[in-house]
Amino acid sequence: MSHSARIERALETAVASAQAEDAAPGLAAAIRYAVFPGGARVRPQLCLAVAAACGDGGHDLVDAAAASIELLHCASLVHDDLPCFDDADLRRGKPTVHAKFGVPLALLTGDALIVMAFDVLARAGVADPVRLPGLMSCIARGVGAPYGIVAGQAWECEITAPVDAYHQAKTGALFVAATTAGALAAGSDPAPWRALGEGLGAAYQVADDLLDALGDCEESGKTSGRDDALQRPSAVKALGVRGAVALLESHLDRAAASIPECAGAKALRETVRVQATRLVPKQLARTAA
Amino acid sequence: MSHSARIERALETAVASAQAEDAAPGLAAAIRYAVFPGGARVRPQLCLAVAAACGDGGHDLVDAAAASIELLHCASLVHDDLPCFDDADLRRGKPTVHAKFGVPLALLTGDALIVMAFDVLARAGVADPVRLPGLMSCIARGVGAPYGIVAGQAWECEITAPVDAYHQAKTGALFVAATTAGALAAGSDPAPWRALGEGLGAAYQVADDLLDALGDCEESGKTSGRDDALQRPSAVKALGVRGAVALLESHLDRAAASIPECAGAKALRETVRVQATRLVPKQLARTAA
Repeated sequence: MSHSARIERALETAVASAQAEDAAPGLAAAIRYAVFPGGARVRPQLCLAVAAACGDGGHDLVDAAAASIELLHCASLVHDDLPCFDDADLRRGKPTVHAKFGVPLALLTGDALIVMAFDVLARAGVADPVRLPGLMSCIARGVGAPYGIVAGQAWECEITAPVDAYHQAKTGALFVAATTAGALAAGSDPAPWRALGEGLGAAYQVADDLLDALGDCEESGKTSGRDDALQRPSAVKALGVRGAVALLESHLDRAAASIPECAGAKALRETVRVQATRLVPKQLARTAA
Repeated sequence: MSHSARIERALETAVASAQAEDAAPGLAAAIRYAVFPGGARVRPQLCLAVAAACGDGGHDLVDAAAASIELLHCASLVHDDLPCFDDADLRRGKPTVHAKFGVPLALLTGDALIVMAFDVLARAGVADPVRLPGLMSCIARGVGAPYGIVAGQAWECEITAPVDAYHQAKTGALFVAATTAGALAAGSDPAPWRALGEGLGAAYQVADDLLDALGDCEESGKTSGRDDALQRPSAVKALGVRGAVALLESHLDRAAASIPECAGAKALRETVRVQATRLVPKQLARTAA
């Protein structure tokens, strides 16, 4: 089964657990809407790719880790889009969850997705409990306080924020969770995989700044120009478009170079290359990518 | 160590994990503010009491389960108080989290507390991984969709809601999680402990309706009259004050009678009795309580 198929199957199983004939219908619908259809599923793809590079052949706990991370990512998008943060109407080319279901259900949808993300780990962990605590803590660190994506969003509520810590928490932390959780779920040491997550997370943050600044709503599928409107730090503002593209490419090179020697290293470098072509906005892509 | 001391210690350890010199200061402060000082800690007390009745003498996983449930309860209070739901200014006799820190940080505080609740389980689960998956799923069921407290709140977004399902999800589910998680963490069968959670949860919901209707802000420590203002179903509206008190007492009697025969049954019945005196608003308390 392809990685994409494994991810969608694990997400479908998770989302189905929240649907029931006697469930509150609005919440059930909003949860499904927040998860399907997805974006590129970058983080769970990365998680599965690292697990495969570590020699995993299709362990349930690996799929659960990938789904958990994507559910947490979806939760963060739903909450970040709310009027009290980005106030965004558009996400993945369709109305945001609160634009379609209202603010109260959007808030609850995010909450339910966070709970679901850990329940997914629990269900798969029954067959493999020894790997479960480390995997949970690894993913929790990428999401919660003080260094996960929730903390990253919290830096936007401060008058000043250290840019590196802000970006690392807001974007990098969940990429690091994706690579290290992939290794952990496959029974491998997570430490050698941190740098890959950090490099890709940093690249992704610059790519996001570029997409936002270049204002290509069609390509990004979301409201653009928000960094500027909300006075958030941006690589484009600091370095200009050319400087930001160079920075993005250096992050990607660093990420690819960090991949440790292992059975699946070659395939994983190819995955990183494919992600790279996705990350650089089309109008700026280097020919080689 | 007393149960209260164990609960506060476990919560303190959890909250400390979100504080760091380089943490976003607003979020770190809001998390602490949301958890301390607490209310009666009814749910974690219940969790520890059931574990003790099952013969547990102070297992770390029991304390973690109790703390996890209280953190999830705190998260639900922070989110329920937000302007898009109850729009409450007062909680436990002080300004609500959003009244003090603003809506964005309040939203993130709830998110961080949910993540923390599962991380607490993970940390304690290292020494006892076999009990971890069942415990996590038990607690997730009490919080998430389709039957947990998030779902209970979601019923308020529907034009009509089945009253029993709404109350069971909004209040009962986390009480059931408290009793069954206590048994699970202590290594016992959770099934005989469901009825105690259901009975106490139902009693607590009626008590909440009474406090809200009687408008005693000083006793409840929160804004009263919200059920009526928000047109929510209420036992007082349906049965009158006397009828609601009778219902509350019948729920408590049912809860006490459900306690299975075990070494700690007598002490647990005493705990239920103490909770009972807390639940009935002072002005209505029966002499016997």
